[in-house]
Amino acid sequence: MHSISDYQENFLNYLESQKISREPKSLYEPIHYILSLGGKRIRPILTLMTAEIFDCDYKEALPAALAVEVFHNFSLVHDDIMDDAPLRRGKETVHEKWSLNTGILSGDAMLILAYQYFEKYEPIIFQSLAKLFSKTALEVCEGQQLDVDFENRDDVTIPEYLKMIEYKTAVLVAAAMKMGAIIAGTNEENCNAIYDFGLNLGIAFQLQDDYLDAFGDPETFGKQVGGDIIENKKTYLFLKALEFSSKQDAEQLLNLFSIQPIDNTEKINSIKQIFNETGAAKATQEAIKEFTMKAFATLETLNIADEKKEILRLFGENLMSRRV
Amino acid sequence: MHSISDYQENFLNYLESQKISREPKSLYEPIHYILSLGGKRIRPILTLMTAEIFDCDYKEALPAALAVEVFHNFSLVHDDIMDDAPLRRGKETVHEKWSLNTGILSGDAMLILAYQYFEKYEPIIFQSLAKLFSKTALEVCEGQQLDVDFENRDDVTIPEYLKMIEYKTAVLVAAAMKMGAIIAGTNEENCNAIYDFGLNLGIAFQLQDDYLDAFGDPETFGKQVGGDIIENKKTYLFLKALEFSSKQDAEQLLNLFSIQPIDNTEKINSIKQIFNETGAAKATQEAIKEFTMKAFATLETLNIADEKKEILRLFGENLMSRRV
Repeated sequence: MHSISDYQENFLNYLESQKISREPKSLYEPIHYILSLGGKRIRPILTLMTAEIFDCDYKEALPAALAVEVFHNFSLVHDDIMDDAPLRRGKETVHEKWSLNTGILSGDAMLILAYQYFEKYEPIIFQSLAKLFSKTALEVCEGQQLDVDFENRDDVTIPEYLKMIEYKTAVLVAAAMKMGAIIAGTNEENCNAIYDFGLNLGIAFQLQDDYLDAFGDPETFGKQVGGDIIENKKTYLFLKALEFSSKQDAEQLLNLFSIQPIDNTEKINSIKQIFNETGAAKATQEAIKEFTMKAFATLETLNIADEKKEILRLFGENLMSRRV
Repeated sequence: MHSISDYQENFLNYLESQKISREPKSLYEPIHYILSLGGKRIRPILTLMTAEIFDCDYKEALPAALAVEVFHNFSLVHDDIMDDAPLRRGKETVHEKWSLNTGILSGDAMLILAYQYFEKYEPIIFQSLAKLFSKTALEVCEGQQLDVDFENRDDVTIPEYLKMIEYKTAVLVAAAMKMGAIIAGTNEENCNAIYDFGLNLGIAFQLQDDYLDAFGDPETFGKQVGGDIIENKKTYLFLKALEFSSKQDAEQLLNLFSIQPIDNTEKINSIKQIFNETGAAKATQEAIKEFTMKAFATLETLNIADEKKEILRLFGENLMSRRV
């Protein structure tokens, strides 16, 4: 088996080799820009790793890995428009650097480009990948729409929230892994088990993101700590805090979540205190652990050598102990 | 062979039967809305007709026809955002009726749904349709980007303009027909010839649109006559008028195209007069005829019965003599 940094390096070389030289430049430059901003490249790495787990030369999975990464970046470009976000990975977002129209159109083009990378595979594999991809991409849109809808609702439940992050984040992690399995030509049971592994790991990953957004170390966390609190986002932490609060505390929390002070320091501190005192912080950590364990349990059903299960477990553990 | 109204009726029944009942409603309602606004359904009709021209039960082409129509409506939803258009077919545009975010997301979902309709076909046909579709969809994005870019340029040439309308409009007409041919399983020569027929007819169709926008009968033309003039759009009429103008007349035309009066009646009349006097109107009609004739010439290379060529010719002639 290759190392994570092997996968990463080879993926980045492949990404560079596939740079599009088509016209008009005004459509393709923003695509190169967003793809070059970096990020952890977790999804494409998972596609490559999974292909090798199921005894396939991981290089055969490079086009699918690129499709997954290009799709992920498509969703970032369109989400940044919807969130009116000025920055992505510390740099200007596409619609800020160019325009709304460029953001929409370059995003559209990336969604189509993602499908084109699957054309490198023969028809049966192609159909299988494209079907999984379409199903996943539609779920990601549904998840994003739920996220948008939740902004204007004050009765979001925990199961609804979990469904939203499953669709918005976890299905793509799951599909990224299943694509590696499909390319390797393993059996359906393995394909489905690795999908479930990715799905639960993806949910844990997003809950971890919610947690770190409030409690991450400002020195190592990539984004602004407290960003979700500033934007009054109804995260798992917030929903659990509401659930665990007395009526009076809940009112205070809702009140804090309705204000937008110029200096957010005090608001962030008060809310983090509530997250801690109500037990919401602890409950979130427990949920992260629960979904991670659920992921690890599906590893047992996989028909592969134990040392390969160990590689997947290690990857999951590293992801869950991350500080960034 | 069936009649156009047979194709249309069956297509609308199929569209209705494929209505999506998934959640969230906030994502799918706008999709039903835009698809129910009507339109001439020219593209899906062409897919069905072409399948039958090549001796296939046209009903087999219904999923592909739907893919083409859903994609076309995706492009309308996103284009309407970019053009900041309040109305589409006399009704509110999606982003006006709901919001910018809904317009972006519902559009994205429609692009993905279009791919899903191809899943009804077996892998080899599926790959062939999806490849053609991706190539076409990307060209439509490129055409839209060129259109956006042209707004801020004053040196657009006639060949550049023709390239833009080829990509933005004609390739989808061409692909709609080729899909019918692919599903019918005809040979590659026929597939390519019917594509060329659709491409030239599509260019003629768009030039006709430019012409009718200025010179159409307000009683029968679906849109506001003079809409392109009001928006200072650099159409074929405008570019030809510039080409044929003396330096002094060109200045007057450019000046008229830089103002945005409250009452546009006088501006529209002056510009139409220039279009007539410079010979731009006549040149546009000649170009329409030229591309229509080019389309008809490719019919000769098709390996089908003469009466079927006649059906295609008749369809082209009807399209070109339209007043709407």
